[in-house]
Amino acid sequence: MKQTDKDSEKDYSFTITKTLPGTMARAGVLHTPHGDIQTPAFMVGGTQATVKALTPEMVEAMNGQAILANTYHLMLRPGAEVVEKAGGLAKFMNWGGEKGKPTFTDSGGFQVFSLGMAYKKGIDATSHSSKGDSTQATHSATQLAKVDDEGVSFRSHLDGSKLRMTPESSMQLQWQIGADIHMAFDELTSPLADKAYVRTAMERTHAWAQRCVAEHAKQWVNHKAAGRPYQALWPVVQGAREEDLRRESAKFLGALDVDGFGIGGVFEPGEIPEVVRWVNEELPIEKPKHLLGIGSAVSDLFLGVEYGVDTFDCIAFTRQARNGSLYTASGKLNITNAAFKQDFTPIDADCSCYTCKNYTRAYVHHLLRAGEILGLTLASIHNEHFVVDLVDRIRESIMNETFFELKEKYLAHYS
Amino acid sequence: MKQTDKDSEKDYSFTITKTLPGTMARAGVLHTPHGDIQTPAFMVGGTQATVKALTPEMVEAMNGQAILANTYHLMLRPGAEVVEKAGGLAKFMNWGGEKGKPTFTDSGGFQVFSLGMAYKKGIDATSHSSKGDSTQATHSATQLAKVDDEGVSFRSHLDGSKLRMTPESSMQLQWQIGADIHMAFDELTSPLADKAYVRTAMERTHAWAQRCVAEHAKQWVNHKAAGRPYQALWPVVQGAREEDLRRESAKFLGALDVDGFGIGGVFEPGEIPEVVRWVNEELPIEKPKHLLGIGSAVSDLFLGVEYGVDTFDCIAFTRQARNGSLYTASGKLNITNAAFKQDFTPIDADCSCYTCKNYTRAYVHHLLRAGEILGLTLASIHNEHFVVDLVDRIRESIMNETFFELKEKYLAHYS
Repeated sequence: MKQTDKDSEKDYSFTITKTLPGTMARAGVLHTPHGDIQTPAFMVGGTQATVKALTPEMVEAMNGQAILANTYHLMLRPGAEVVEKAGGLAKFMNWGGEKGKPTFTDSGGFQVFSLGMAYKKGIDATSHSSKGDSTQATHSATQLAKVDDEGVSFRSHLDGSKLRMTPESSMQLQWQIGADIHMAFDELTSPLADKAYVRTAMERTHAWAQRCVAEHAKQWVNHKAAGRPYQALWPVVQGAREEDLRRESAKFLGALDVDGFGIGGVFEPGEIPEVVRWVNEELPIEKPKHLLGIGSAVSDLFLGVEYGVDTFDCIAFTRQARNGSLYTASGKLNITNAAFKQDFTPIDADCSCYTCKNYTRAYVHHLLRAGEILGLTLASIHNEHFVVDLVDRIRESIMNETFFELKEKYLAHYS
Repeated sequence: MKQTDKDSEKDYSFTITKTLPGTMARAGVLHTPHGDIQTPAFMVGGTQATVKALTPEMVEAMNGQAILANTYHLMLRPGAEVVEKAGGLAKFMNWGGEKGKPTFTDSGGFQVFSLGMAYKKGIDATSHSSKGDSTQATHSATQLAKVDDEGVSFRSHLDGSKLRMTPESSMQLQWQIGADIHMAFDELTSPLADKAYVRTAMERTHAWAQRCVAEHAKQWVNHKAAGRPYQALWPVVQGAREEDLRRESAKFLGALDVDGFGIGGVFEPGEIPEVVRWVNEELPIEKPKHLLGIGSAVSDLFLGVEYGVDTFDCIAFTRQARNGSLYTASGKLNITNAAFKQDFTPIDADCSCYTCKNYTRAYVHHLLRAGEILGLTLASIHNEHFVVDLVDRIRESIMNETFFELKEKYLAHYS
């Protein structure tokens, strides 16, 4: 099944090559101007146009297929115009050399509502409630993030400067940054927001998605004229954990002329599979779906795929690595524990990553205990390889219909 | 000219292949059980059994020939016995894979007198004066480092625990760590110590060198019996900036049955060439010499070579890199300056390092400004490549007798 592009000049497509019988799980190929992504796939996190502690070659060596950066971070530093002048995100960060490899950008919506509001002191992002079309989530004027129907005013988490983002500006910034796939600007709601507010935010997200589509089309005309490749647009389904709102959101966004979808939200443990199922039962089957905001739950990867998710991202695996918490096929271990001081075996004997092929637990233990940078690198390589490789195995298990065996094997150690 | 080993089972030699007419400069080959080092050579600093922020492959890619680790640091963490059980320093840190590549260890003497004394509060290492055979350099009992003729008692800079190091224990630790070349345990004196104290310390250093030779011979017998390769011993010439003491120290140590020499001390700017000349006029010409404790002065590399130095080490180049201070053939620049935000040229257009071949000034600027680990790695690769490559160029300039042209070219930018 192949998604048909109305605009034949778009060097972009998604092809489903296999569907797992009795499930919504599928394997496919997401084609971008910077190359193909075999799905399901785990997008490697590159928030600030760098994968923390790793060179691009290290990401390639672990079979990382695409990197996801963040519009909010890049607009603040170094500025979207710098990335544009450098030749776009992939070139700026040397991801894939001269030709470049695939990249995504998140819209900045999530960070505007979380980091932007959290300047100086954290604010309670759960205080949202419905009171007309202007909502303030703040403790004081200096920490103001204010959403209205037009866009969001917020402060930089770096220096407190006042900034504003709208659907149009998010699109303009993302076309400047130049990733292959953009997310539309959306309003994130807290899991504790009341249903009336969730509806307000969802409807605003829909109106913003329409404005993103319009601005995106305008940008594409200009870029096409300049001989630049297409950049795809995926709006983000919201609606928290309300089944009716999620289905309504998926139907609304599913009817737009867009290239794929994000599934957004802040999820409580265990909520993801049901929400994903509601959404993917309504969205067009033939378009790709990205699940935003998973934690580091291995089970979410299996369940997400089972209900039709094609791509994932999550920065928790490398963050945990930097704290010494390492994933193995038989569960997690904390490498800084004294038990590993004289353990001259690899982190995971069955792992084929650079770290496991060349270093011992004792050495990684030493480096992290001694506060050495190489320890962060070796631990990050291992964990990121773990999750990239796991999603590759899930893909393989769809192709050869061994998905449930693989799921059972991993969930014995990661419930 | 080839140094003859009395013990034919020693897989160690130094061969001078070329001497620059009218100077003491020479090029040679230092052969170790883990491979050859083409001299003059810059030893890459790997204090804690890791080159800060770099993988061993990155060090190989910049043509790094040998890594120098520190006995003091490794005895504290992870412990010399851990490195021994891992198969020795090179294997522990994956330097050169299964076969391993050459390594040095510093004796720990310098750190015992600096870091060991500096626990909690820095102490004034210049307060040494001659008063019998026991000298205290401390402000309070909790920061005590006490030297006597037997050895040194000091406190760990990590946890304040009481420790002791003697010439014998330094040798035992170094044989456990298993580097190819060891430095003898010496007493470092401050540049401000009075001459009587410098003599006391120098004589103690000589007595300790004799004890190191004896312990080293004992260790070699045991290691040889266990089928392990030879590890060379280089005692360290002291005597501060007193010509008579430096010459006396060089004569004394030069008469010992050892494999090479270190030239130690804390140097003021400009002092190195004269001190090196005094020492190398007395030491046996045919044996290799390592200059310890240079700052990051490019001129010291040229002047050291000119007066007969074969190997160098210095951690300042990578430390400066982490602060954004980068070396180029036309002088230093601070990459974090705003001027580089949109500079899409390499750090040094003539540099062949991984960073310059793949990244722009704007990107390294962004990474360091954003506090990203990859910025530390890319900057460190560049600076360490600069100095390794510079010493390689110096070697080449001895071979083809263009040394003074090269010196003039660099010293125009680095006085």
